[in-house]
Amino acid sequence: MDNHYRKILNPISLDQVEVRVLQLLRHRPFFSRADIVDATGLSRARVSQVLTVLHRNNLIAPCKTGESTGGRPPMLFSFNKQARYVIGMDFGATACRIGITNLAGEPLSLREEALDIKLGPELVLSQALTTVRDFLRQQEIRHDSILGIGVGVPGPVEFLTGRPISPPIMPGWDGCQVAEFFRKDFACPVFVDNDVNVMALGEQWAGAGQGVDNFIFIKIGTGIGAGLICNGHIYRGAQGCAGDVGHIMADASGPRCNCGNVGCLEAVAAAPAMVRQATAAAQEGRSAMLADLLASRGHLAAVDVGRAAVEGDQSAMDIIRHSGRLIGQVLAGVVNFFNPSLIVIGGGVSRVGHLLLATIRETVYSRSLSLSTGSLSIATSALGNQAGVIGCSMMAIEETLASSAITHERLSTILVRNGGEG
Amino acid sequence: MDNHYRKILNPISLDQVEVRVLQLLRHRPFFSRADIVDATGLSRARVSQVLTVLHRNNLIAPCKTGESTGGRPPMLFSFNKQARYVIGMDFGATACRIGITNLAGEPLSLREEALDIKLGPELVLSQALTTVRDFLRQQEIRHDSILGIGVGVPGPVEFLTGRPISPPIMPGWDGCQVAEFFRKDFACPVFVDNDVNVMALGEQWAGAGQGVDNFIFIKIGTGIGAGLICNGHIYRGAQGCAGDVGHIMADASGPRCNCGNVGCLEAVAAAPAMVRQATAAAQEGRSAMLADLLASRGHLAAVDVGRAAVEGDQSAMDIIRHSGRLIGQVLAGVVNFFNPSLIVIGGGVSRVGHLLLATIRETVYSRSLSLSTGSLSIATSALGNQAGVIGCSMMAIEETLASSAITHERLSTILVRNGGEG
Repeated sequence: MDNHYRKILNPISLDQVEVRVLQLLRHRPFFSRADIVDATGLSRARVSQVLTVLHRNNLIAPCKTGESTGGRPPMLFSFNKQARYVIGMDFGATACRIGITNLAGEPLSLREEALDIKLGPELVLSQALTTVRDFLRQQEIRHDSILGIGVGVPGPVEFLTGRPISPPIMPGWDGCQVAEFFRKDFACPVFVDNDVNVMALGEQWAGAGQGVDNFIFIKIGTGIGAGLICNGHIYRGAQGCAGDVGHIMADASGPRCNCGNVGCLEAVAAAPAMVRQATAAAQEGRSAMLADLLASRGHLAAVDVGRAAVEGDQSAMDIIRHSGRLIGQVLAGVVNFFNPSLIVIGGGVSRVGHLLLATIRETVYSRSLSLSTGSLSIATSALGNQAGVIGCSMMAIEETLASSAITHERLSTILVRNGGEG
Repeated sequence: MDNHYRKILNPISLDQVEVRVLQLLRHRPFFSRADIVDATGLSRARVSQVLTVLHRNNLIAPCKTGESTGGRPPMLFSFNKQARYVIGMDFGATACRIGITNLAGEPLSLREEALDIKLGPELVLSQALTTVRDFLRQQEIRHDSILGIGVGVPGPVEFLTGRPISPPIMPGWDGCQVAEFFRKDFACPVFVDNDVNVMALGEQWAGAGQGVDNFIFIKIGTGIGAGLICNGHIYRGAQGCAGDVGHIMADASGPRCNCGNVGCLEAVAAAPAMVRQATAAAQEGRSAMLADLLASRGHLAAVDVGRAAVEGDQSAMDIIRHSGRLIGQVLAGVVNFFNPSLIVIGGGVSRVGHLLLATIRETVYSRSLSLSTGSLSIATSALGNQAGVIGCSMMAIEETLASSAITHERLSTILVRNGGEG
């Protein structure tokens, strides 16, 4: 019985008041007992109790003595970000980024590997797990020191169950129990979300969105999608598919999208649309530079259009401006609706150069209401292709703490009633 | 000194733990001390303390004895919704709805008066105050029994300060300190927000949105705007202007909107656009029915178009379908972005009849991604023109409790230290 509880409660068992206090403490350099009393409204006795539990779990440590205000100088504590570790795995269409971070999301190990998501969950997850085992061995981290695992995948996910739902570019993954795969190695919780949501979380905690309560992360690549931070929390929507800006209609006379509708933003402005226009410009003799690039490599990529535009190629500049205007027009609507204070732009196409960002900015600022854009910033991702893996770690930390508070509440009560910790 | 505190703390002074418990209790028929311990994770001693404070403030009352599980049967309490009252005032362009409700938002008195917002704040607020004084006298409610006042206005509001910001149809109101006006009569807090946000709150607490965590209320009238309920709370955005769907571009070839942009939804689909098209159809001989209505009254209104459509008039039906498609198209984008589980449609134009709702539904369901629309409902307002005034009351209750927890925390501490309640 005791062993059973130890396993379930491993590695952290906190009640909801303890989690609430821990959430406060994580983001302060140090704090005294009185600081927590002030911030929470809990009694001094309850706060002492909570600090004892957190200390026993090694989550906080006394760091120094504060200034006396007359009596005995107060003991100051700080959050111990090395108390546990988390694993982040950010799967893209053709590559995977895997990292081990501490409880502040700071990476100890980080690696990018070529890995085709189309190989299916068994092969893809096995290869990722091998890398994780290597990392843990190298860093001498025990498996039971892992607080939680966060996984990002390039498709829609039912967040509560962690299962991909009919993901268009992930054959074999539909309904896959990703968390189950890690159960033999790890007793900790596993959380799965789509790639743009974890990127938004990465930017929130360690990138361009730090300290910003309401922002949108938009990824522009082969597809276009957005992650929403709303009142400081990721917003997933009623069915977990909020942020699907790629299928908002951008051009009523545009081509049919693979979703079946006409003129979706993704179909007219993402990488394949840019490449299609660039290839046409090369083949029809409208751009010598693009024709040269096409001749030398047999195909074009979105970054080629960026390179040609930087060199002054008119067709390339037109293509980028066209995509920027369409993206900006959809974002202008989003700004009117959501009134964020920041839009962070990431994904492969965001690296085609400044002209895209400039065109998006110009369109949003001219098309949104001035009250909404008064203090709106539009910036590129600060973390680049590390946003996802850091976001996976942060998701693992946030969600493990939140679920600990809910799931373990009753178990803790039982344990306390039985007079021990199991 | 004591009197000073009594005045500031009047009528309710709760710390944040007490407010948290009260928020739980408000929505249960009855509860025992053990229920609260279970739901909050607080100690039994702390819960007893909190219940004593709530009881002393008359906010809860013992109601009956529960079933014994062996020992003494537990005492059950219930929330006392008559403990205090709130005032709601929903100002429209040409009419005002004023109500006194209890702490459950149930109206004791409710009246609609013609009142032109263009008369300016001094005249408009004075007339509303006279009505409020009448109500309180009739109901024998003392001014110090008022917990809070909620005010809705037809224009943008900086929520934190409660001041209208450059409201286009409210001359004289820009920057007006609405709360100050009520200070001589009431010591309680006053909260001001725009009309669609208070309507969304009304639908959330007493209308079509009850129990729904993520929904959009859209008002279609002379203008078009939306209120957003996000994770159970009103979402106002970074500058407080979230939900401005009326200025999302709906038709690139449409007319210029009075915001300066081209083809805004409001300019092509709201009441004035429908009236303009109906008048043209009447004058150009395309609709005998609309021509008759125009001849008999000299002008047309949106409801006339609705009436003609119900009678089978083809032009009227085309006008309504045209508006419905444009509104549906913008909402389809909003659904992809926000993934709500409900859209509630209100405002004057929503009363033109079923054809508008049917067209909006058809367009949203065909243009949004199926994952987003899988369990999306689109319904008309359940409260009609009472949504705003009930929402004002609910805003007053929610915000007063929230601000009590924050503002009075330190004052309560001082009072407790001084050993009394002032």
